[in-house]
Amino acid sequence: MSRADRFLRACRREPVDTTPIWIMRQAGRYLPEYRETRARAGSFLALCKTPALAAEVTVQPVRRLGVDAAILFSDILVPCEAMGLGLEYPEGGPRLDPPVRDRRAIDALRPVDAVRDCGFVMDAVRAARALLDGEVPLIGFAGAPFTLACYMVEGETSREYLELKKLMFTAPADAHALLARIADATVSYLAAQVDAGAQAVQLFDTWAETLSPRDFDEFALAYATRVIRDLRARLGARAAGVPVIYFARGAAGVLERLPSCGADVLGVDWRVEIGAARRRLGAGVAVQGNLDPAALFLPPGEIDRRAGEILDGAGAAPGHVFNLGHGILPPTDPEHAKRLVETVHRLGAGRTAGAPA
Amino acid sequence: MSRADRFLRACRREPVDTTPIWIMRQAGRYLPEYRETRARAGSFLALCKTPALAAEVTVQPVRRLGVDAAILFSDILVPCEAMGLGLEYPEGGPRLDPPVRDRRAIDALRPVDAVRDCGFVMDAVRAARALLDGEVPLIGFAGAPFTLACYMVEGETSREYLELKKLMFTAPADAHALLARIADATVSYLAAQVDAGAQAVQLFDTWAETLSPRDFDEFALAYATRVIRDLRARLGARAAGVPVIYFARGAAGVLERLPSCGADVLGVDWRVEIGAARRRLGAGVAVQGNLDPAALFLPPGEIDRRAGEILDGAGAAPGHVFNLGHGILPPTDPEHAKRLVETVHRLGAGRTAGAPA
Repeated sequence: MSRADRFLRACRREPVDTTPIWIMRQAGRYLPEYRETRARAGSFLALCKTPALAAEVTVQPVRRLGVDAAILFSDILVPCEAMGLGLEYPEGGPRLDPPVRDRRAIDALRPVDAVRDCGFVMDAVRAARALLDGEVPLIGFAGAPFTLACYMVEGETSREYLELKKLMFTAPADAHALLARIADATVSYLAAQVDAGAQAVQLFDTWAETLSPRDFDEFALAYATRVIRDLRARLGARAAGVPVIYFARGAAGVLERLPSCGADVLGVDWRVEIGAARRRLGAGVAVQGNLDPAALFLPPGEIDRRAGEILDGAGAAPGHVFNLGHGILPPTDPEHAKRLVETVHRLGAGRTAGAPA
Repeated sequence: MSRADRFLRACRREPVDTTPIWIMRQAGRYLPEYRETRARAGSFLALCKTPALAAEVTVQPVRRLGVDAAILFSDILVPCEAMGLGLEYPEGGPRLDPPVRDRRAIDALRPVDAVRDCGFVMDAVRAARALLDGEVPLIGFAGAPFTLACYMVEGETSREYLELKKLMFTAPADAHALLARIADATVSYLAAQVDAGAQAVQLFDTWAETLSPRDFDEFALAYATRVIRDLRARLGARAAGVPVIYFARGAAGVLERLPSCGADVLGVDWRVEIGAARRRLGAGVAVQGNLDPAALFLPPGEIDRRAGEILDGAGAAPGHVFNLGHGILPPTDPEHAKRLVETVHRLGAGRTAGAPA
């Protein structure tokens, strides 16, 4: 078995030679080579929109860290621009303009044909696949509808996303109309990435953590489920070969509900023990996670110990993809990230009863 | 049974006539009378430090909403000033200066004698008790050590509290020294509030949600446990009459661990079903919560329905204190908060099998 297979096999809960690992935001600011490429691009958005450079930063962590999958370098808000919103990344976080806060604005959103509207993303997928040359698989991704709606309604990052909650609670039909439009755009966006060469896809639902269980069901999980269902329908026979990962941050209170979304892999953040999470998620899905990103500040020996605890917690059943519990932090030492990858590969080989005999 | 007893009895898991309710941050900006009093005080900190005005805003929600307990108006960062840090509340959140980031700064923190150093808080407790005149009990409060450490190390509100995590992970002995000092100050602070007349106390551990389960045990729960233990020792025979509430936000992943802290009541945020939370917390503690604060934007009939769901979820066993799952939001309509209180009292009376026959 090679690095080319390990990640996809684990997503399908098949035996592997050792636990595969990739790192959320592995193509990012903690890497000097990323900062250099971004400087060449001129801006974050220019980097997203220049396929050769986006592909270059996509493969950088594969070379540097030895991770078992690449994830396309892009941003979850890219499709929002295709829907008709202005998108900028000033200091302090992204801005979408104008915020979408009423039915008129929702109805004015443009339907997305991702091949036509986000061609630079698909070009980046193709370029990254060419650079990777089969060494490891390429993961495509999108924001889940609820999380995109948070940004689109608020217009920027927020702590509580109150404007969206006000919409949900005072005009639920409008909130649902918005989420449905985003879901349709997301299906087009992910299908186009798969058509261009993405070998797995992840839906990021970062802000699902702001919801109570009943609202999580109605406004987040239902639309992640819809995206996964419609994406599979769009892909047809190819769907079986493209694992879908759903990562809802802050979902420790609702883990039991997650498998109903139909994803092959469920990501869990660092605030739950992965063993408890696997039990609550059940045996029908693979699990991805979940080291605290800040744990990479620990001395190397301690990083090893924590990686071992997570491998122990995830247990011997096949179907664990190691990852951080959220994106790698910009002040992280790349050597510590590399150490983590090496440790997971070393310890995972000894502990995975699911490994081929 | 009167409003004077209902809250304290529920904290002790004794039968009650109906479910008691109070609301985190009930003395706050959503109330016009609060804004008027704060304007008279001149600033937030001046309001905290003027006992007559702090007492006035403490009782405002008791009059307006009919809640079953008052909570002292103050701020969790007040003891940090007594420890030697500069404290200000500019736009955008509190500032503590200088941030405490090394052993020298930790060792320079002043031990707190709360009666001497925070006399204005104790005066406010006495003034509030006088104004309340036995109508409902008065809850005192403090920030839990981990949450205070977040602010003290960072110097301000943060999303990830990385500076504290760096201290924890690169100099754990220093982090423990800081937490121990804060714990000691907190014991003095809470004991003085009880001496002045507080009839229950709540420890707020807002930022515990940034921690993995193992770090939560070591850096948050251990110090909440220490505060509760030492406070009880300090209070001696009086301790049995003063319920302690521990509220760790974002603790859905670690609910099973919470009862070990020794609190009488455990607060749960809105991101977990309260029925599931009660099962995971066990029968040995009362539970407080947990309506999504944003749910007060719903139409009144929907607020009623959600309140009913929480009462149903909490079940018939005595020991449920209704509350929001976090502080009430400034844009909330006070009439909606009042409606919630009335609804909980009306529905709670019909559903509480623990009510006296």
